[in-house]
Amino acid sequence: MMDLKKLRCVVLGGGGFVGTNLCRALVGHVAELRVFSRRLSHEDALVGVPWLRGDFTEPEKVREAIRGCDVVFHLLTATTPASSNQDMAADLQANVGGTLRMLDACREEGVRRVIYVSSGGTIYGIPQQVPTPETAPTSPITAYGVTKLAVEKYLHLYEYLYGLEYRTLRVANPYGPYQTAAKNQGVIAAFMRHAIDGSPIDVWGDGSVVRDYVYIDDVTTALCSAVTHEGPARTFNIGCGKGRSLRDVVATIEEVSGIKIAARYGEARAIDVPRSVLDTSLAHEELHWHPRVEFADGMRRTWDWIRTLPRQKA
Amino acid sequence: MMDLKKLRCVVLGGGGFVGTNLCRALVGHVAELRVFSRRLSHEDALVGVPWLRGDFTEPEKVREAIRGCDVVFHLLTATTPASSNQDMAADLQANVGGTLRMLDACREEGVRRVIYVSSGGTIYGIPQQVPTPETAPTSPITAYGVTKLAVEKYLHLYEYLYGLEYRTLRVANPYGPYQTAAKNQGVIAAFMRHAIDGSPIDVWGDGSVVRDYVYIDDVTTALCSAVTHEGPARTFNIGCGKGRSLRDVVATIEEVSGIKIAARYGEARAIDVPRSVLDTSLAHEELHWHPRVEFADGMRRTWDWIRTLPRQKA
Repeated sequence: MMDLKKLRCVVLGGGGFVGTNLCRALVGHVAELRVFSRRLSHEDALVGVPWLRGDFTEPEKVREAIRGCDVVFHLLTATTPASSNQDMAADLQANVGGTLRMLDACREEGVRRVIYVSSGGTIYGIPQQVPTPETAPTSPITAYGVTKLAVEKYLHLYEYLYGLEYRTLRVANPYGPYQTAAKNQGVIAAFMRHAIDGSPIDVWGDGSVVRDYVYIDDVTTALCSAVTHEGPARTFNIGCGKGRSLRDVVATIEEVSGIKIAARYGEARAIDVPRSVLDTSLAHEELHWHPRVEFADGMRRTWDWIRTLPRQKA
Repeated sequence: MMDLKKLRCVVLGGGGFVGTNLCRALVGHVAELRVFSRRLSHEDALVGVPWLRGDFTEPEKVREAIRGCDVVFHLLTATTPASSNQDMAADLQANVGGTLRMLDACREEGVRRVIYVSSGGTIYGIPQQVPTPETAPTSPITAYGVTKLAVEKYLHLYEYLYGLEYRTLRVANPYGPYQTAAKNQGVIAAFMRHAIDGSPIDVWGDGSVVRDYVYIDDVTTALCSAVTHEGPARTFNIGCGKGRSLRDVVATIEEVSGIKIAARYGEARAIDVPRSVLDTSLAHEELHWHPRVEFADGMRRTWDWIRTLPRQKA
């Protein structure tokens, strides 16, 4: 049984939304913590956490970041669902090729466990069963989902061949503080930013698209549980287990902000599955995890954070 | 509904065992046929079939091979289950990267359907359910299996995004004429060669490893059925649905050849799953296909072919 307090950890790709929150959850609770990323979206949020600058295209820097660590959190992603389909070969090479080099470094540097943040929203494709359990068929409709799946399979293979432990968390749509509207991800942060600016929101489709929005603190709790988990399962859905449409999201933002939002609905995108909600029973059972933060509460906290943010940050 | 007689077909990677048999099954039954491969294992078997020489590392040659074709049979594989684990990044780049370039060429050249030969023996990993249906979990224990799976997922994605049709056949362990003992694949051909030579056979493990051996003519029939198939399924197991151990194989070779074989059993390999047998109900249902050649009969035909072969060919 691993003891969190004694572990040296690195968060690869930890400069973004999930990584920043994860580092804040880990710091002080582990023996050592460092973050590896191209940039830090919120440097002031990570005071006291050593930052190694680099990305997936620099294998020697990745190796340096890993050296001496027991646990590697793998959050590195070179693309987004939308951008991945533009150049699938490059997406494959960056994300899967990069992961293979990273896993070889993990073997050689004696890492004990890799915790991988996979994508609950893209890996199943258009789900035949909602809420969707981990055992459902995986037929992604973005290259992003395919490469996430390939990485999951290589993790299994490395554990089988080399004893490098892993846990995969298929995270739904996380939201909360430190999410920014950049890179076309994070619809909640983007909508809130529009509310603050008083500018209309352009929505892909008619607003009926349903997602499983999970508050970031619940996600980081799950990631920490995965470090010490000893059960048989390897892959866990992490979501709130409830579906909310984009129209629900807009309504809730209006509620917590008191601002009326002008939403312009348009053409749907082929890359958006109509409905994605995760069945998280397995995480309940094996990680003893369940989402604690109610949507309205999480949205209020997110709003409180984002409205105090200098504009250029969001 | 596609009419086989009107279709122009290319068999990519068609110079080996499955490809040679497939070309022989197609020639005269399609409007046009060509074969693309690095080499032809049995050139005399493919008289009258235009051969374009090249491999996966030459995108322009792949494109040339595809040009003007309605149907592409994708049999290109740059590695074997054993070799794939030696350099996973190279395996990924060659097989999956190469397939992506090929699929882009298919889109641009107006190909209607891709028929992919996947691996029923490696894609499931160590199966929890035997015989294994297509819906079983896929957890390969070789990089070979992971890249086959990734290609399956990209095929799904290309059909979804671009309307490029596909069918995937997860073929078990094919055997029959034109299989040679090269490349460490084709245990039946290898064992028969040893019987002819009177040399002892070295077997990985104690001979208890069970496989689903399917006669090659049954495989090519399935491949042809996949061309005109119009049902909802995309991925089919193709095997005989019965398991036979290596000891069974040795016994049957002794029976059909009348030669006593000296088998030396040794260490098992980590890459060999203990038992692999496919559930082929879906192919029965949708392709109206079932294996027709009994094992003893297929082994007799294989023996009759291999014993008349000049030694240097096998």
